[in-house]
Amino acid sequence: MSGLVLRDARRDEVTAIVRMLADDALGAARERLDDPQPYLAAFDRIAQDANNRLLVAEQDGELVGTLQLTVLHGLSRRGATRALIEAVRVAAPWRGKGVGRRMIEGAIEIARAEGCAMVQLTSDKSRSDAHRFYESLGFVASHEGMKLALR
Amino acid sequence: MSGLVLRDARRDEVTAIVRMLADDALGAARERLDDPQPYLAAFDRIAQDANNRLLVAEQDGELVGTLQLTVLHGLSRRGATRALIEAVRVAAPWRGKGVGRRMIEGAIEIARAEGCAMVQLTSDKSRSDAHRFYESLGFVASHEGMKLALR
Repeated sequence: MSGLVLRDARRDEVTAIVRMLADDALGAARERLDDPQPYLAAFDRIAQDANNRLLVAEQDGELVGTLQLTVLHGLSRRGATRALIEAVRVAAPWRGKGVGRRMIEGAIEIARAEGCAMVQLTSDKSRSDAHRFYESLGFVASHEGMKLALR
Repeated sequence: MSGLVLRDARRDEVTAIVRMLADDALGAARERLDDPQPYLAAFDRIAQDANNRLLVAEQDGELVGTLQLTVLHGLSRRGATRALIEAVRVAAPWRGKGVGRRMIEGAIEIARAEGCAMVQLTSDKSRSDAHRFYESLGFVASHEGMKLALR
């Protein structure tokens, strides 16, 4: 697993990232691989936001994972900055090999470098393996993650 | 309750907002009212972020509540934009009068206007009243909210 690099995604990697997002029990029903346009438009919105980074994990020139990291400035906890992790995926052939751990550890390093006092994420309640994984990294499931779909 | 206005906070309102954040079972231990500097610096960071808004609810010239709303662009769910709500407080004399409901409804309106497909938040597992409140507004507690303190 040496040589894993966590870096900002390029626009020409969007289709490969969407393929990773879709290759998942929950993601399969949410994504559409036949129309890249909404994804490219979303990539451009992320690229324009200095606090929002779409990251990929690369191993020996191959994309092996992705996650999104957003820096959230806020007033609470004495003006603490937080990092929010979303949309974590490891490419299917690379699962169970420590890639996810290296990715989250890399995201935590970025969060520390940005001066964040906390890293937070939500994980679907059906993903019990994921909860054990995040707990093994020190995360505490202290909150209810609540969602309201608007469409 | 007519006349409630949800608007962007001003810098000279930071101390009043911090007082609301601290006037809470969990917030009391997290905030410090004797030093406004970290809060003013955080206000300036929020003000520089076009996707991040610190809001106050005003009723007849009085600050009656606060929340933070962040617009999160992302690739997943076909490039869906989400809104994240954080740091919701209603001033103590105004609790139980529908202020919180009007504030969250106002935040949902802003999220719709920004084209968000989803509104999300996390709420400490000890706040069971808050979970019922959000469920009454249509939120579903579908996720575990996981936090990792970095200091």
